[in-house]
Amino acid sequence: MKLLEDRIRKDGIIGEGNVLKVDSFLNHQMDIALIDELAAEFHRLFKDCGVTKILTIEASGIGIACLTAKYFGVPMVFAKKSKTKNIAGDIYTAKVESFTHGTVYDVMVSKKFLNSSDKVLIIDDFLANGQALLGLTKIVKDAGAATVGCGIVIEKAFQDGGKIIREQGIRVESLARIKEMSVQNGAVFCD
Amino acid sequence: MKLLEDRIRKDGIIGEGNVLKVDSFLNHQMDIALIDELAAEFHRLFKDCGVTKILTIEASGIGIACLTAKYFGVPMVFAKKSKTKNIAGDIYTAKVESFTHGTVYDVMVSKKFLNSSDKVLIIDDFLANGQALLGLTKIVKDAGAATVGCGIVIEKAFQDGGKIIREQGIRVESLARIKEMSVQNGAVFCD
Repeated sequence: MKLLEDRIRKDGIIGEGNVLKVDSFLNHQMDIALIDELAAEFHRLFKDCGVTKILTIEASGIGIACLTAKYFGVPMVFAKKSKTKNIAGDIYTAKVESFTHGTVYDVMVSKKFLNSSDKVLIIDDFLANGQALLGLTKIVKDAGAATVGCGIVIEKAFQDGGKIIREQGIRVESLARIKEMSVQNGAVFCD
Repeated sequence: MKLLEDRIRKDGIIGEGNVLKVDSFLNHQMDIALIDELAAEFHRLFKDCGVTKILTIEASGIGIACLTAKYFGVPMVFAKKSKTKNIAGDIYTAKVESFTHGTVYDVMVSKKFLNSSDKVLIIDDFLANGQALLGLTKIVKDAGAATVGCGIVIEKAFQDGGKIIREQGIRVESLARIKEMSVQNGAVFCD
């Protein structure tokens, strides 16, 4: 999506170690006009899939998921992160490994909010190694529901996540796919 | 706001210790149609205040703040929570005590996203003891910006937070104000 790629080129800040900071418009300050355009695009891409629920994970996915859910006219559910060891029986849960932080955390969704008739569109701001997304697709599966696809704002296509998810037969639509990036040359997008 | 009060009566679950669970429509699953009505009401209440920025705190405030920002046509900033001790110099920060969890955490906003010309509307889902809101108003003050008001979805008016904030001369508009609540009698709202 050209609008987004242009914005990443203009305002994204690339650091060492494949860090891409987009905190001026996506995940600290949010440019709502831009994000609403992204939400409209997710709707255009998935509008014929019978989506009944939008699923994301706290915290930075919530805004984009919320605006997307408004276009679909369906509820949004955000999975909660926790380091809690003792988990009650009325929730779906998945373990997610964060390579960035070197930690493992639990992702949780109450069983009340996903059921076997749901067709779920998963929305998130970033796709890199795909661990969070795998956790969400596991939760949808555990609920007996169907994942109709994943809508991602920025995919780091040079990392494995997108490949892993797509190899499971899940449709992934990323609005910007970064092929490579460096402090020297900036971000290069996939065709 | 009758729509919200009715929904709290219908779907809110009251537990011992003044716990009110609204996770079926507000802070786990989000009923976007309802929340969009709340956002429109915040806009109606504050539309003449020259708001330049919406400020909230992760995670559950993000959705309502996002939809509110869309009505105002301004960016939204969400403050981040952290237990980090070492804090870089380019952020505004405040310490917030969580009575619920018995912990103290830092709230942080990058200095890039608040400046002295900003007129800030603070949005949050709950107001109880007001500690998080006080942290946000301190951050706005540290930035030299003005807090034009606070838009709260549910105020537990039997706790001190609302009083403390209002005594500082800050306008607080809560869409539902709970005077008292109990497992036996449910929620009673202020007139």
